[in-house]
Amino acid sequence: MTPTLENYTLGRWTPGAADPHELRDASTGEVIALANTEGFDFEQILAYGRRVGNPALRRMTFHERGRMLKALAFHLQEKKELFYELSYRSGATRADSWIDIEGGIGNLFANASLRRKFPDKPFYVEGEPVGLSKGGTFMAQHLLVPREGVAVHINAYNFPIWGMLEKIAVNLLAGMPAVVKPAVPSAYLTEAVVREIIASGILPEGALQLVVGSGQGILDHVTYQDVVTFTGSAATGAKLRAHPRIISEAVPFTLEADSLNAAVLGSDARPGTPEFDLFIKEVRKEMTAKCGQKCTAIRRAIVPAELLEDVQIALGKALAQTTIGHPQAEGVRMGALAGREQAERLREQVRQLAKTTPIVYGDLENVEILGKERGADAAKGAFISPIVLRNDHPFQHLDSHELEAFGPVVTLMPYHDPSEAVALANLGKGSLVCSLATNDPRLAQDFVLGAATHHGRILVLNGEMAKESTGHGSPLPQLVHGGPGRAGGGQEMGGIRGVEHFMQRVALQGSPSMLTAITEVYQTGAKTVEYDKHPFQRYFEELEIGETYTTHKHTVTEADISAFAGISGDNFYAHVDATSLEGTLFTGRVAHGYYVLSKAAGMFVDPRKGPVLLNYGLDECRFTKPVYPGTTIGVTLTVKEKIGQEKRDENDIAKGIVRWLVTVTDETKETVAVATILTMVKKKNQE
Amino acid sequence: MTPTLENYTLGRWTPGAADPHELRDASTGEVIALANTEGFDFEQILAYGRRVGNPALRRMTFHERGRMLKALAFHLQEKKELFYELSYRSGATRADSWIDIEGGIGNLFANASLRRKFPDKPFYVEGEPVGLSKGGTFMAQHLLVPREGVAVHINAYNFPIWGMLEKIAVNLLAGMPAVVKPAVPSAYLTEAVVREIIASGILPEGALQLVVGSGQGILDHVTYQDVVTFTGSAATGAKLRAHPRIISEAVPFTLEADSLNAAVLGSDARPGTPEFDLFIKEVRKEMTAKCGQKCTAIRRAIVPAELLEDVQIALGKALAQTTIGHPQAEGVRMGALAGREQAERLREQVRQLAKTTPIVYGDLENVEILGKERGADAAKGAFISPIVLRNDHPFQHLDSHELEAFGPVVTLMPYHDPSEAVALANLGKGSLVCSLATNDPRLAQDFVLGAATHHGRILVLNGEMAKESTGHGSPLPQLVHGGPGRAGGGQEMGGIRGVEHFMQRVALQGSPSMLTAITEVYQTGAKTVEYDKHPFQRYFEELEIGETYTTHKHTVTEADISAFAGISGDNFYAHVDATSLEGTLFTGRVAHGYYVLSKAAGMFVDPRKGPVLLNYGLDECRFTKPVYPGTTIGVTLTVKEKIGQEKRDENDIAKGIVRWLVTVTDETKETVAVATILTMVKKKNQE
Repeated sequence: MTPTLENYTLGRWTPGAADPHELRDASTGEVIALANTEGFDFEQILAYGRRVGNPALRRMTFHERGRMLKALAFHLQEKKELFYELSYRSGATRADSWIDIEGGIGNLFANASLRRKFPDKPFYVEGEPVGLSKGGTFMAQHLLVPREGVAVHINAYNFPIWGMLEKIAVNLLAGMPAVVKPAVPSAYLTEAVVREIIASGILPEGALQLVVGSGQGILDHVTYQDVVTFTGSAATGAKLRAHPRIISEAVPFTLEADSLNAAVLGSDARPGTPEFDLFIKEVRKEMTAKCGQKCTAIRRAIVPAELLEDVQIALGKALAQTTIGHPQAEGVRMGALAGREQAERLREQVRQLAKTTPIVYGDLENVEILGKERGADAAKGAFISPIVLRNDHPFQHLDSHELEAFGPVVTLMPYHDPSEAVALANLGKGSLVCSLATNDPRLAQDFVLGAATHHGRILVLNGEMAKESTGHGSPLPQLVHGGPGRAGGGQEMGGIRGVEHFMQRVALQGSPSMLTAITEVYQTGAKTVEYDKHPFQRYFEELEIGETYTTHKHTVTEADISAFAGISGDNFYAHVDATSLEGTLFTGRVAHGYYVLSKAAGMFVDPRKGPVLLNYGLDECRFTKPVYPGTTIGVTLTVKEKIGQEKRDENDIAKGIVRWLVTVTDETKETVAVATILTMVKKKNQE
Repeated sequence: MTPTLENYTLGRWTPGAADPHELRDASTGEVIALANTEGFDFEQILAYGRRVGNPALRRMTFHERGRMLKALAFHLQEKKELFYELSYRSGATRADSWIDIEGGIGNLFANASLRRKFPDKPFYVEGEPVGLSKGGTFMAQHLLVPREGVAVHINAYNFPIWGMLEKIAVNLLAGMPAVVKPAVPSAYLTEAVVREIIASGILPEGALQLVVGSGQGILDHVTYQDVVTFTGSAATGAKLRAHPRIISEAVPFTLEADSLNAAVLGSDARPGTPEFDLFIKEVRKEMTAKCGQKCTAIRRAIVPAELLEDVQIALGKALAQTTIGHPQAEGVRMGALAGREQAERLREQVRQLAKTTPIVYGDLENVEILGKERGADAAKGAFISPIVLRNDHPFQHLDSHELEAFGPVVTLMPYHDPSEAVALANLGKGSLVCSLATNDPRLAQDFVLGAATHHGRILVLNGEMAKESTGHGSPLPQLVHGGPGRAGGGQEMGGIRGVEHFMQRVALQGSPSMLTAITEVYQTGAKTVEYDKHPFQRYFEELEIGETYTTHKHTVTEADISAFAGISGDNFYAHVDATSLEGTLFTGRVAHGYYVLSKAAGMFVDPRKGPVLLNYGLDECRFTKPVYPGTTIGVTLTVKEKIGQEKRDENDIAKGIVRWLVTVTDETKETVAVATILTMVKKKNQE
């Protein structure tokens, strides 16, 4: 019996209620699953996420959430062969599935690591403190907390696994639960992964719900604390963005739509250069990987007019090696589109394009396929040949820039000078990504500054990066993904930037002491406390934010400066040559900044063995006033922030990093140097 | 004859074409100007901004744009009495007008200063470089460039000057031109300021256009490179946000709507405490400043049940001192609402509120006014008494949280425990700002973390900050302004954050050398170049990004460590006590981190007098490997970034800050320390 896909909502697995929908193998046309896509009570589902999943996640710290993602990534990695097996049915080759499966798991790992950029707290203190008053008693700091709703992700059919994981990794790290609605044609893959996730018990209940369905009505119940993301066609995206609830509740809505991404060949990248070869390779790869069903795939190849013939010939040769067929058949390099419906739509799109721009490679109607012994069937499956069109008048025939054929299709077009290349790339009216193959830095800078307004990502291909490049088509978790205009105007991922989409930012104003208490980071001017015990003798847990040590004093002498010049070898004229100072900013021999810093350390360090393990580094050190012989310096050392570290293994010492504010003042109480220093401090509790 | 307001579009001043609309003095009802509010060709107006204003601004650097804003601020400051004179006609007292006029000019100054957070370039390299490969040949960096369109600002009537200046300051700094459409009732003030701006010639032509009109049709022509902001009612905002062009072109749209902002009294802030007095003062001020017509005004006062009577009495006393009348009359502390229409609407809103929550202070129908000799007229002017309502059942009667009376009106309501205070504050479903009066840090942290999901800004009032506080109602250019849900879900200002709204972010991928060339910042792993001349002997202009100096080497000895301990006084056990190392991370006496840094400086510094003026500081220094006696260290010094400085005055030395990457390696080529150091370097050209 054909299995029916199930939904995971309100803490249990259930089939949908109506409208049995047949899901078919992309190569053979065989029915592989049924999906009942209606009958959801979205009001309840969203409320459940807010009530059950949200509180569980928001009370966890970023580090706890990150470790949860890491555990999940390892768990799914163990199960990956299960997903590969199933993924063949979507027409994907093993290489195609790698993007979906391991790309998705890689996203979990990357977001797990991203925890280190956040504190081990449920909230995030963002950016620099803002002074708001002369006397220093009034200031501000920006703070982010997880939103109180659910993240609703409405995903596309081409990446059923990556599409879910790249999104939930981010909302989970932020502390928000998700409701995922995959596109129906490949929902069996999303369902398989969610089954493993739920069974693992790694996520708190309510953190993830899955609805395999039409999603009709899902937005009727979103509120201002929720977030909605949509990946798919611009038309559906526009409809959802204008949904009355999205508008009236001001719900953050991120749209990421297919766009007509371009690859541009620099005029220096002539045949025989590494850049020419890279360009051909990249275009071929982006046409054929996932059968061209990637929202980042190259749709337009913009090349110097004088190289158009060379490109057409070289690309044709490369494509001729692309064997097509059942993804499990020996030697197949390109599988099938997702289904017959997608194949039919693609053919119509190409016919429309071909009205003004002729097909110069490939056959729209016929395709030779391998793997018939596995049931691959040209009539029942969704196979198509790669197609190259050529638009010799790309400023006249605009279909190439506006009508997307979602499959292995590219249009070649010529340009005559660098500004034309920018203009053509930008005629797409907003893309997710654009590539430029060049080894000319000047040309690259001009192109990038001209095209950056129209592309969410720009990749510069040259020989230097070729071996390690992840390629045109790969959105990466550390980089923003999304583009202006046609690409939807959205932006997701990008490291911390992506996490912020699922949090509310608040500008917090108050006194330094109050803001220290709330943010748990020492703010200059806040009250401090001083104990009898030197802070270097106190364990990580014992140290308090604002705890201070005030040192003895030291009168700097010429002998100090000379001695320091001797030991460091730093004989810079202003330190050692009293006759050199005319026309300088100094009125006498000045102490080395590094002497002041080193002497300050000598004054604040407690030499006895204690919990301080090592000096880790320093940040934002500024020398604010010259120190001349005769100046008497004193230092205060204040605990600014504590960042717990995870043990690498059982034998590792339990410890954390302490950030200390060091202020060196002179006898007039003016600051001569300020720095944040970092030490590694042992924990009292070594378990 | 009554003057007709004019529009500044397409490079000239012209009156509108139809619909003469009468603008009246808020106190006397006298007609002061006519506005012809129709007949604009918005397609042309927007196109003009894109074609003329945008290229002029985008080719300027951030520093040039910032200096332009500074010049503009000084210019308007000179003209300010002109604006004050006119502003009385809007019912505003001099104190009210200060917010609008000098608050607006202050915003120009603040954004002018913000230039220092940006490079002296037309584009902005954002955040840290992102490594994308093991070998280091492939990496990324985020880059922002000004969008290619216009910023369309649709503003509210309550702040005709600040409302324009706080927005254009940001888009101008970003490099985008603006089209400003003020609300009609107070447009004569916006027009007066724009006249001075245009006459000054400080902005390039096309950078600012003004349409005094209904704005009907303005969004029909926006494109994906434009940005639209709207400040005003939620209903109009929702309509604009759903406009077909906004949706289809994915135009960034920032909505900032009136919200039911709350002030909360902490349970510790009993009568007699500074916090109680601050709370009463703040509520009174926010009710009466600008006659309560501020989108940030306090509409809800949430107080401990046991203090409700005390608050009601104290607030009544404070309000009783609020004399009302013609803003120019002696002794008047509160002027008029913007007009009769606004006053009528307000009375209806209060009548609705009073159905469930009684008026406990003020008279809706009668008001005693001063300044009749200046024509103030209770019947023709828009005067109203401050009104306090009381809602004893704030979880039942929800009008207090949802129906805004835009005037001097507040509702008192009780809470019984801290979680109720958070719940009530959040019942506003999203506000611009919330205040909390408390001196209890624990209470403050719990409240802030609970209420941060619902408020764009939170102000904690206590005795420590009272003297310097800018207050509940003041959005500040350095802080984000906007709030979730009812407040519109938008965010503007916030320093750099605000500028980013008018720029397109692109993730730029490529080799380190290519990214160095494009970003003009040295990226680790990029090609370097070494000259015969020491870089300390080269002027600011001569230094090249990537220029490197490789030092001689030095074998560290125990004598070095001992001598450094002596001169610095840093006798930390790991450096000086060879018997202390058991159980530490070290296998022998280790050199001080500051010794390594100081010695590195001694090795890379050229002691001869030259263009390097001083050592300015250092950033991100990390000690990555212990240095034991016998280790041989060597240093490379590479120009990472150059930041030109402005001369303070004619006599100032022309100079800039150079950021150098310092890498200290040992004999195995491993890095033992890395830092970014900053020096001040003289320019060759001293003009």
